[in-house]
Amino acid sequence: MLLTTLYIIGITAEAMTGALAAGKRHMDWFGVMLVASATAIGGGTVRDVLLGHYPLGWVANPQYLAITCLAGLFTTMVAPQVVRFHKVFVLLDSLGLIVFSIIGCRVAMDMGLSPLICLVAAVVTGVFGGLLRDMITRRPPLVLQKEFYASVAFIAGGMYYGLLYLGVEETVVTISTLVVGFGIRVAAVQFGWSLPVFRLEEIEPVAEKLEAPKS
Amino acid sequence: MLLTTLYIIGITAEAMTGALAAGKRHMDWFGVMLVASATAIGGGTVRDVLLGHYPLGWVANPQYLAITCLAGLFTTMVAPQVVRFHKVFVLLDSLGLIVFSIIGCRVAMDMGLSPLICLVAAVVTGVFGGLLRDMITRRPPLVLQKEFYASVAFIAGGMYYGLLYLGVEETVVTISTLVVGFGIRVAAVQFGWSLPVFRLEEIEPVAEKLEAPKS
Amino acid sequence: MLLTTLYIIGITAEAMTGALAAGKRHMDWFGVMLVASATAIGGGTVRDVLLGHYPLGWVANPQYLAITCLAGLFTTMVAPQVVRFHKVFVLLDSLGLIVFSIIGCRVAMDMGLSPLICLVAAVVTGVFGGLLRDMITRRPPLVLQKEFYASVAFIAGGMYYGLLYLGVEETVVTISTLVVGFGIRVAAVQFGWSLPVFRLEEIEPVAEKLEAPKS
Repeated sequence: MLLTTLYIIGITAEAMTGALAAGKRHMDWFGVMLVASATAIGGGTVRDVLLGHYPLGWVANPQYLAITCLAGLFTTMVAPQVVRFHKVFVLLDSLGLIVFSIIGCRVAMDMGLSPLICLVAAVVTGVFGGLLRDMITRRPPLVLQKEFYASVAFIAGGMYYGLLYLGVEETVVTISTLVVGFGIRVAAVQFGWSLPVFRLEEIEPVAEKLEAPKS
Repeated sequence: MLLTTLYIIGITAEAMTGALAAGKRHMDWFGVMLVASATAIGGGTVRDVLLGHYPLGWVANPQYLAITCLAGLFTTMVAPQVVRFHKVFVLLDSLGLIVFSIIGCRVAMDMGLSPLICLVAAVVTGVFGGLLRDMITRRPPLVLQKEFYASVAFIAGGMYYGLLYLGVEETVVTISTLVVGFGIRVAAVQFGWSLPVFRLEEIEPVAEKLEAPKS
Repeated sequence: MLLTTLYIIGITAEAMTGALAAGKRHMDWFGVMLVASATAIGGGTVRDVLLGHYPLGWVANPQYLAITCLAGLFTTMVAPQVVRFHKVFVLLDSLGLIVFSIIGCRVAMDMGLSPLICLVAAVVTGVFGGLLRDMITRRPPLVLQKEFYASVAFIAGGMYYGLLYLGVEETVVTISTLVVGFGIRVAAVQFGWSLPVFRLEEIEPVAEKLEAPKS
């Protein structure tokens, strides 16, 4: 099945780039495997936990977890090559983002959830892997800051949901979403598109006081 | 219903102050919506996941999630005003804290859980939104450090549970808990009340060694 | 039962060392209780949430949560003594690591999960408490960096699973795993054993570019 093949390519690419983040924090092999796996399958895990969708994908299919662990360890051996061919990885990562978003939207639709929650499932699946990686390795949450990342997950989820709703045949929907989503993502990286950014330097002192007591 | 109205006011205020934290990290619109939502409904989400209480509130009622996203985006437009009227927000935030604690306690009671777990549910609902916000935006976990924050959630949960246990009528219990909890919280902010703080500077070198290997 | 006794010793030791981390961040009593509890029972909580294994251990048995909260508060009173006898705590912590790993493996086996997931359950139970502590108190994720920590959880889980699979009597399996696991852990601390570490300084600039867009 097309989506499964692309999913495996996607989690492998995500795991490898996740392993690089672990390498910058000087983690041992277990740390590398954990960050690689969290990056690659953490988004789907958070989605399934939020939706109560058990068993989790990697618990039912442990081979996906084996792939991300091995891809992480493999990266420690070929890091210079990974870095040299980084443009290939950016493409594979973009592909993974769209595949993850489609799968996330699909899971929520199969559970009969409302349109807004299906879009949220798409974005969570696409974005939370990178967010977990950044929280574990203590880096700024890049996926929330730039390059149209969550937006592409949102657009892909919306397109997938909308075309299915309109009665378009599923294979056609999947392929068109892949092509359009991938194109938007690559264009966003190429041309530096991004959503408006909210900056709050100038009023920091008072804002600090306001946020201190927060739930 | 009173509690629902206050809940909507509470999540709106929380989302707006959450959005300010995202602004300090220069997040894009999606980042703002995510941090706003995590701050406002993250506490209830963590509670429900810990208790296995599915579906989550915002999955069953996506309009709450729509409110927090819109409140977050709205904050990017009116940030200076939010900061100017920050005293109003501190009051709304205090109100939200009590409402969240009551709802958290109520959910655990309806599940037939033990008194200690009901209190934990109250505290988790009140505190974890702010904790998630601080972890995502990489700031010190303020809610665990000062201003009697978790304590107020604990007191509100205990008062709500205890009065119901004593057979007091529910509306009376809810309103008294709101008034007393809100009063304690405002007094704590006003007079700088806080729980004792545990400081461990002086013995740091050895403590560091002790904590390194930890599960 | 042996395992229950050792479990209580383990969570007490973990909670006390967790409280020290909270003390370095100047947390109030609630913060101390939260970090102590997250360190001691966070690993089992994450495992149960991932496996959909409800109710969580401390929800069904709130006395464990009471123990970790009290152990945390107690630590604020006896911190100098804890630090003075830190070698005892390293031993208790090592014992806790093996006990947690055995229990994690056991839970997954009782759910009929595959061998790989049983090992993952052992490692998650052993390691995630420390990882949560480090994320809440914003410290480097030590358990992923050194001292053979996750590795010991992996070995203990594998030995427990393997011996049971071979038909060895359960009490014998438990005691041998405890002895061997504890021995390996103490030897690792003593002789500075660790897994290879993945370092990625030299190629940082390009790697940075590669990881920015990640899911």
